[in-house]
Amino acid sequence: MATIKQIAEHLGIAVSTVSKGLNGANDISEETRQMVLDAAVDMGYITKKMRKRDNKKVCVFVENMDYESIDQFGYDIITGFQKEAMRRKWDVTIIPTNLNLQTSEKYDTYMLKNGFTGGFLIGFTLHEDWIKQLHETSVPTVLFDNYISDNNHIGYVGTDSYEGIHDAVKHLVNLGHKKIAFLNGSKNSMVSQQRQMAFIQSLQEFSLEVNKKLMEYGYYVPDCARYHVPTFIENGATAIMCASDLIATGVVTEVNRRGLKVPEDISVIGFDDLPIAARQLPALSTIRQERSNLGKSAVLLLDGLMSEVSISKILLRAKFIERDSTGIVKS
Amino acid sequence: MATIKQIAEHLGIAVSTVSKGLNGANDISEETRQMVLDAAVDMGYITKKMRKRDNKKVCVFVENMDYESIDQFGYDIITGFQKEAMRRKWDVTIIPTNLNLQTSEKYDTYMLKNGFTGGFLIGFTLHEDWIKQLHETSVPTVLFDNYISDNNHIGYVGTDSYEGIHDAVKHLVNLGHKKIAFLNGSKNSMVSQQRQMAFIQSLQEFSLEVNKKLMEYGYYVPDCARYHVPTFIENGATAIMCASDLIATGVVTEVNRRGLKVPEDISVIGFDDLPIAARQLPALSTIRQERSNLGKSAVLLLDGLMSEVSISKILLRAKFIERDSTGIVKS
Repeated sequence: MATIKQIAEHLGIAVSTVSKGLNGANDISEETRQMVLDAAVDMGYITKKMRKRDNKKVCVFVENMDYESIDQFGYDIITGFQKEAMRRKWDVTIIPTNLNLQTSEKYDTYMLKNGFTGGFLIGFTLHEDWIKQLHETSVPTVLFDNYISDNNHIGYVGTDSYEGIHDAVKHLVNLGHKKIAFLNGSKNSMVSQQRQMAFIQSLQEFSLEVNKKLMEYGYYVPDCARYHVPTFIENGATAIMCASDLIATGVVTEVNRRGLKVPEDISVIGFDDLPIAARQLPALSTIRQERSNLGKSAVLLLDGLMSEVSISKILLRAKFIERDSTGIVKS
Repeated sequence: MATIKQIAEHLGIAVSTVSKGLNGANDISEETRQMVLDAAVDMGYITKKMRKRDNKKVCVFVENMDYESIDQFGYDIITGFQKEAMRRKWDVTIIPTNLNLQTSEKYDTYMLKNGFTGGFLIGFTLHEDWIKQLHETSVPTVLFDNYISDNNHIGYVGTDSYEGIHDAVKHLVNLGHKKIAFLNGSKNSMVSQQRQMAFIQSLQEFSLEVNKKLMEYGYYVPDCARYHVPTFIENGATAIMCASDLIATGVVTEVNRRGLKVPEDISVIGFDDLPIAARQLPALSTIRQERSNLGKSAVLLLDGLMSEVSISKILLRAKFIERDSTGIVKS
């Protein structure tokens, strides 16, 4: 690990200038500061404050995920993270971000400049620049629902969908359903692919036919139901499982629009168990993601990475919750 | 959660007798004590001492795994666990065990009787009695390389073999190997099956043929090499990957016994990176399990489960380590 003196020698400038650059003093130019920070990152410099075990400063980058109201997916994740961080006396900064931040600055430089010893990234569509940088970063970083291979400083926290999906399929099978459709989220998301595999595996475990016409990728918005529900129904589906509660609300709307009823004609199952799930009419059967625990686990993982415990993944259990949107298949 | 008074009422005995039973006093019969403990477990009683956040008493059950010398697989797992537990001021008891304990007493009763708030089970061949009890236990429990579904009080810690196996196959492919054999551990072990899948997937990613004659389950002892190495060689294998370093030492011995050399004729790769791996002649290329970190992660997981964070799995990264037992394929 480099010292301030080594950075100064490397750049051919005074130790005091390096120190000013690292501490954000105003009496050096922005260019010099950037040069110092870039060199510090390249040389693996970590400020003294960051090295100290207590009083850690960490940040949560949020992109493409709603979190400001208690009804939204990100809310409990962030409050869970904050609570668990508070137990450790960490200072947490929430940073709403977008692709611009990812392309405007190197990840490590951003973290060093702002004194963050660790980061938690949620809701991200990773820009290829940051993916590349995350492959090489030495800043302890936790990703929600994203995975970076071969870097000991990065961990992934998420929900192990398999159990929840298995239990949901079992529930439908017990109600007599044989043609179960699955309306998934975006195809290019790692979790969508995991859920697709869990769905197929569960069908096979109950000796149900795997029918490609009953599995579609959509997006994590209600509107995608319009395009796929008609095809599902034409192909004989009596139940539709969805990759989110929001998608499920869209499915219920579309089923009703076609003069059919949930659950009498079509059973519907959501995913996430957002507060809206229980408030829907009919109340939505769903697969619960423990969002507060996801946030807490991110802190456990970050704590591990900061003490050089190279955890790759922490996965939480998903639990099937039966409500009113699933019923006995129509004979 | 039941109180002492409720247990007394339920059993129709005095509160003081229940109290004696729970606290291990000598002036009641062993039968009465067992009756009190069984009722306490059934009724979900937890002693006050166990409820207190600090000063937790936890235990590590070790079965079928060597751990007493630094050369052995379990040693670093247990010391890692102890170190991380010490940071939390937990009291740790190591309990070497065997199937007798599993059949002689209910898990929850054993834990309550001994005042353990949490357990870590390593090296286990789970007896069906304990598997059944673990499905229902409410005692926070972490399993190494074992998984119990649908119970929020149980978590699994292990190594995600995929990356390490992928990198090892890649290394062999770069050395020109096309016929790579895999000598796995016991067939009825969950991790053996995971590694088999990772091996097959890695072969496919490098467009290598998946040949059943080059994949065998054995046992985690060197001796199993005798039965499978001949078949591998007859079927053209130029490299043999093994599910443990111990198996790999057996493979090297068997290769030599047949007048062939490692790595000139056959490349060999182990798994675990036990201290013996580096000391072998030739030094063994292997896939490292971070055993100390596995122990530390078990504490993180147990801490999570104790604060009602329903973590299902913590997986660590496995890293391929190149030494002298792998070489360019003979042309």
